[in-house]
Amino acid sequence: MKYLFKNALVVTMNEGLDVLESCHVLVESDRIKAMGSSLSPELTEGAQIIDAEGKLLMPGLINGHSHVPMTLLRNFADDMNLQTWLFDHIFPAEGKLTGEDVHWGTQLGIMEMLATGTTCFIDMYFFMDDIARAAELSGIRAQLSRGMTGQDKGPDFSENKSLNESIEFYKKWNGAAGGRITGAFAPHAIYTCSPEYIEAIRDAAEKYEAPIHVHLDETKVEHEDSLKNFGKTPARHLYDLGVFDRKTVAAHCVWVTGEDLELLKEKGVSMVHNPTSNLKLASGVAPVPAAMADGVNVLLGTDGASSNNNLNMFEEINRAALIHKGTTLNPLLISAAESLKMATVNGAKALGREDLGIVKAGGKADLILLDLDKPHFMPLHNPISALAYSAEGSDVCLTMVDGRILYENGEFKTIDKEKVYYSIRKICERIF
Amino acid sequence: MKYLFKNALVVTMNEGLDVLESCHVLVESDRIKAMGSSLSPELTEGAQIIDAEGKLLMPGLINGHSHVPMTLLRNFADDMNLQTWLFDHIFPAEGKLTGEDVHWGTQLGIMEMLATGTTCFIDMYFFMDDIARAAELSGIRAQLSRGMTGQDKGPDFSENKSLNESIEFYKKWNGAAGGRITGAFAPHAIYTCSPEYIEAIRDAAEKYEAPIHVHLDETKVEHEDSLKNFGKTPARHLYDLGVFDRKTVAAHCVWVTGEDLELLKEKGVSMVHNPTSNLKLASGVAPVPAAMADGVNVLLGTDGASSNNNLNMFEEINRAALIHKGTTLNPLLISAAESLKMATVNGAKALGREDLGIVKAGGKADLILLDLDKPHFMPLHNPISALAYSAEGSDVCLTMVDGRILYENGEFKTIDKEKVYYSIRKICERIF
Repeated sequence: MKYLFKNALVVTMNEGLDVLESCHVLVESDRIKAMGSSLSPELTEGAQIIDAEGKLLMPGLINGHSHVPMTLLRNFADDMNLQTWLFDHIFPAEGKLTGEDVHWGTQLGIMEMLATGTTCFIDMYFFMDDIARAAELSGIRAQLSRGMTGQDKGPDFSENKSLNESIEFYKKWNGAAGGRITGAFAPHAIYTCSPEYIEAIRDAAEKYEAPIHVHLDETKVEHEDSLKNFGKTPARHLYDLGVFDRKTVAAHCVWVTGEDLELLKEKGVSMVHNPTSNLKLASGVAPVPAAMADGVNVLLGTDGASSNNNLNMFEEINRAALIHKGTTLNPLLISAAESLKMATVNGAKALGREDLGIVKAGGKADLILLDLDKPHFMPLHNPISALAYSAEGSDVCLTMVDGRILYENGEFKTIDKEKVYYSIRKICERIF
Repeated sequence: MKYLFKNALVVTMNEGLDVLESCHVLVESDRIKAMGSSLSPELTEGAQIIDAEGKLLMPGLINGHSHVPMTLLRNFADDMNLQTWLFDHIFPAEGKLTGEDVHWGTQLGIMEMLATGTTCFIDMYFFMDDIARAAELSGIRAQLSRGMTGQDKGPDFSENKSLNESIEFYKKWNGAAGGRITGAFAPHAIYTCSPEYIEAIRDAAEKYEAPIHVHLDETKVEHEDSLKNFGKTPARHLYDLGVFDRKTVAAHCVWVTGEDLELLKEKGVSMVHNPTSNLKLASGVAPVPAAMADGVNVLLGTDGASSNNNLNMFEEINRAALIHKGTTLNPLLISAAESLKMATVNGAKALGREDLGIVKAGGKADLILLDLDKPHFMPLHNPISALAYSAEGSDVCLTMVDGRILYENGEFKTIDKEKVYYSIRKICERIF
């Protein structure tokens, strides 16, 4: 297909943070073919016109850390202690989930993400085939990994069920759906995986040249237990186990020290900031300003809907721009532009993709359109500021991935909303 | 008019936090006449039916502290130091505002509030006649006061311009628009008003039996300067000046001490929590859990759109439920229900109104309807939790004040949207 966005206000998210008024953006197949204040008729011939007057075009958002099927547990168990929440509510409910449930929960999550401007998500969960299938069908982009936990000391992990599932998943899905779906290996966390198991996972990631997705230093307890059990911080522990020698996305990183940040920087580890989840679960506020000052790549993620309780990246952008100012008493941390970068270009960098997270000719056509005809966009003194401080997920009126429109004005083009709602209700009747 | 909401999911916000399924709510004139799972045909005869199946009915939100016309300065000056922000950007721009500008800015702000479920706001600004006029025309409910600043030592304040404006405003507008508009007296803050001036304002409030609206202990600098200049905290200073002997709404209260909270409790002062503004301006995080434990009435407010940058109370509810957990590392602070109360019943209490902030027979028909047909409301395990953690302002599909529908499905019934947008653009061309 060929699309021409006409007269958009384009927030490019390029290095100069260029904002272009009345800009035309031509999409051909899965890429941005050309953009500018005027495009030759030869170039745009046959393109379907999308009137973007009074609308803002920007790169689709990249959700850096999620457990998408946990939409099923949204608002199910809130306002309780972490242990009660996890052991008395979340784990028992998750224990009842089938692959089919996870598939429907993923579709629901993808609906929410598409409706709020997310075009790519990085996920860790189980029943990954069912998640990948939902991502494939929906047309969204995703990096997926089966979360692995185990305290086995080895030495032989060749019969390990989760590891073998991960390998099979990776072989089957990495590069699938025309490259929209990629794989990763996911040792869940240092407190749920023995060092030996983590090494076995790292070896597999190395063998398949795969990236790694891991939870890192989310809570004070994790940090202190690591010091007690391993005599070092969680980050140093993973560093010493060679995990960071793979391209790594580390979620949360709330309690990382200044020295840990040096390790992340040295190895090019990307740190996912999950402001809502970290606040809601009372994990704390991650040292994002310090990480950015150190040159660590910081991206943004929602985490699962049981600890958020949304998959709405505009909320994370807004929160990332606010909480560091308030908790450090420094109004210069983090700027609107920095927080938007975390949700776009920094996410792309974490995925090793130069063709995502930015509106530029030659880049992937993962684009979103926001309707500016809302009181909260008036007046529009500064579009970048407006996106970070005023925009809501619901302002998104069109979401395109790989040059394909997946969501437009409340309608999902690839997902049967009623069928998803019906299935979710049936699942809830059975489980809760 | 007579309206019948049919089959709503009603979140009452009554003491038992009752949530009623398939409930009918009958509105007659400005009040809720009756509610229940079935209402007699005689009672509902002639009522206009509002199909609320799949929708959630709840009390309209009360915005406890705002400067509504500052919508004109939305996203105008972000990510800068407080002094630069205020003296180089906000004050010079405000200096150019006319009463007519303020009137249009207020209409814009009321549009945003109505579209996101606010039915009543407590405001302090200047050109208050123009604000009151906008509130009157729009049909929204408001408690309004002219912010007063001055370092005059007196003793005679009879010629003081702002004080006289305040008195005139109060006499003209208190109880106006069928009681929808009420007045208050607003000494801006202890650092912008001399003690003598504050006393003169207190005397006027006493004479007219009016409430008081004041900024209190917003920043660390305000707190420290008060200790230095007056040898006491800002709260003790106002207490000693007799301000708290009037019914008082104190905004921000970020730096109040445990002893200050005792003073607020003793005098029944209501404390406005402004989480977004306090984060964005790097003022800090108010001791809301301590205040609530002490029994202080805490309500929620947006502050102005230059430091928020929205007037969307659902964002404040969400933030209030999140930040105290994250910054104290206690996941039990503040619960979804507590944060919803702050935006409804606690707001009503601050206004001394038992007929607001709650859905009950006999109460004012200040009601909002939320459309639950959104992925982020699926599944709906817990409506109270969903409202605090998942709802967005844009979920509001109908807003009613005093039994009159002011907003429905994107349409404003009392405000000419295009005219407001046009006027805002003209103002911006002139000022910025």
